[in-house]
Amino acid sequence: MASGADAGNGRDGLGELIGLEVLEESDEGVRARVAVTDRIRQPHGLVHGGVHPVLAESICSGATRRAVEPEGMVAFGQSNSATFLRPINDGHVNAAAVVRHRGRTTWIWDVELTDDEGRLCAVVRMTVAVRPDPR
Amino acid sequence: MASGADAGNGRDGLGELIGLEVLEESDEGVRARVAVTDRIRQPHGLVHGGVHPVLAESICSGATRRAVEPEGMVAFGQSNSATFLRPINDGHVNAAAVVRHRGRTTWIWDVELTDDEGRLCAVVRMTVAVRPDPR
Amino acid sequence: MASGADAGNGRDGLGELIGLEVLEESDEGVRARVAVTDRIRQPHGLVHGGVHPVLAESICSGATRRAVEPEGMVAFGQSNSATFLRPINDGHVNAAAVVRHRGRTTWIWDVELTDDEGRLCAVVRMTVAVRPDPR
Amino acid sequence: MASGADAGNGRDGLGELIGLEVLEESDEGVRARVAVTDRIRQPHGLVHGGVHPVLAESICSGATRRAVEPEGMVAFGQSNSATFLRPINDGHVNAAAVVRHRGRTTWIWDVELTDDEGRLCAVVRMTVAVRPDPR
Repeated sequence: MASGADAGNGRDGLGELIGLEVLEESDEGVRARVAVTDRIRQPHGLVHGGVHPVLAESICSGATRRAVEPEGMVAFGQSNSATFLRPINDGHVNAAAVVRHRGRTTWIWDVELTDDEGRLCAVVRMTVAVRPDPR
Repeated sequence: MASGADAGNGRDGLGELIGLEVLEESDEGVRARVAVTDRIRQPHGLVHGGVHPVLAESICSGATRRAVEPEGMVAFGQSNSATFLRPINDGHVNAAAVVRHRGRTTWIWDVELTDDEGRLCAVVRMTVAVRPDPR
Repeated sequence: MASGADAGNGRDGLGELIGLEVLEESDEGVRARVAVTDRIRQPHGLVHGGVHPVLAESICSGATRRAVEPEGMVAFGQSNSATFLRPINDGHVNAAAVVRHRGRTTWIWDVELTDDEGRLCAVVRMTVAVRPDPR
Repeated sequence: MASGADAGNGRDGLGELIGLEVLEESDEGVRARVAVTDRIRQPHGLVHGGVHPVLAESICSGATRRAVEPEGMVAFGQSNSATFLRPINDGHVNAAAVVRHRGRTTWIWDVELTDDEGRLCAVVRMTVAVRPDPR
């Protein structure tokens, strides 16, 4: 319990649960997607609005962490703000995340979520806090 | 597929996936919780920051929907904004959602997320759009 | 009083108060700026963080209104969310606003605020509600 | 110019410009208000949606600053997110700000904006960053 809490098992449990696939990760940003199945639909058959923030959290916090850990820093989500524009029913939820600001204590990411026709369906703005590793 | 997308199966897929338990739903608000397991932890063993928006979306959109459907209206999340204050490692993510505004076209909800010691760990503000049922 | 409240005088009082200059307004977006003086500084000499949301509200709600009024609709700000990246001390607060979504009931705008060296200092996301004119 | 930028004149320029009156400031929170005049109305006669974030920024950043400066820290707004529920035409914009979280690096504030009939007209959530004074 304490050990699990302290160390983790290195796996992104919730990312795996929704079927997150990271397609590309570079200095410029991250592309990822999730296939739409009933596992991520809400009762009326649309993609559940929680999928977008889960996706954003996984890819933005993950990419920030990998960038700052070599400098002895840790990273964790500080805010996650999703705005929904258009429902997704089928296909994939496709995410493209871009870093807007790499500050000493804060990174800001913008994430666009599109359907398989390329229509913009949601936008997420994430603030990731960067702090010295307490260990 | 199309039929699934149009009608849904009445189940909250993503809510079930994270183990959402609704404890109480009244006119005043909703209380719910999720047990912390590796399924919802991020790689370092903390609760994944996507859990809070999923919880908020499930309970706030659900409660709004149940309130407005008898009047021929539908409800869907329009924005979901989470701010993280303190990590959760173990126990439960406990959610208490309160309606702040019941407008004709918009409901606003505030959700407080606490750990099992009652400490405030995150806050979510949700805007749920209410529209005439297109069918 | 009622007449003032019902009709307005057609002037953007708060925009004028901060010295808002609209430089360009097209279908693509809006560019505007505010000169930095003590009128818009906070006690420590930095630009007050309220300037950015005022700017965003004036230009985004204004441009949406001018676009939808010919169709018998009204527009008003529904949410205004600013994230601050870097302080501005002098020169101008320069704003570039782009429409991300033109929905039937909602327009979404992204606004970037830069200093005179072109550095990104803040980002604002605005939701503008569009409704039938009640008159 | 540089001196102005470095030190400020100790005055809240934008707060004064909108006519901000702080009514009460305690450990629990802050109450303040702004009288509605054409100076803060938008073109249709309603209170401009930028007033609420200005109010929130002035009172929340100000109160955080006064609390943390004795400990050698500085405070500045990091995010300011306003949601609008109901327009205000006349009377005052009344603000009640409550601290939700006093962290080492971040304070979170909730601000309720009401009209003179006590109706909730907007809510603002502010994140104020707290850092060691660089001087």
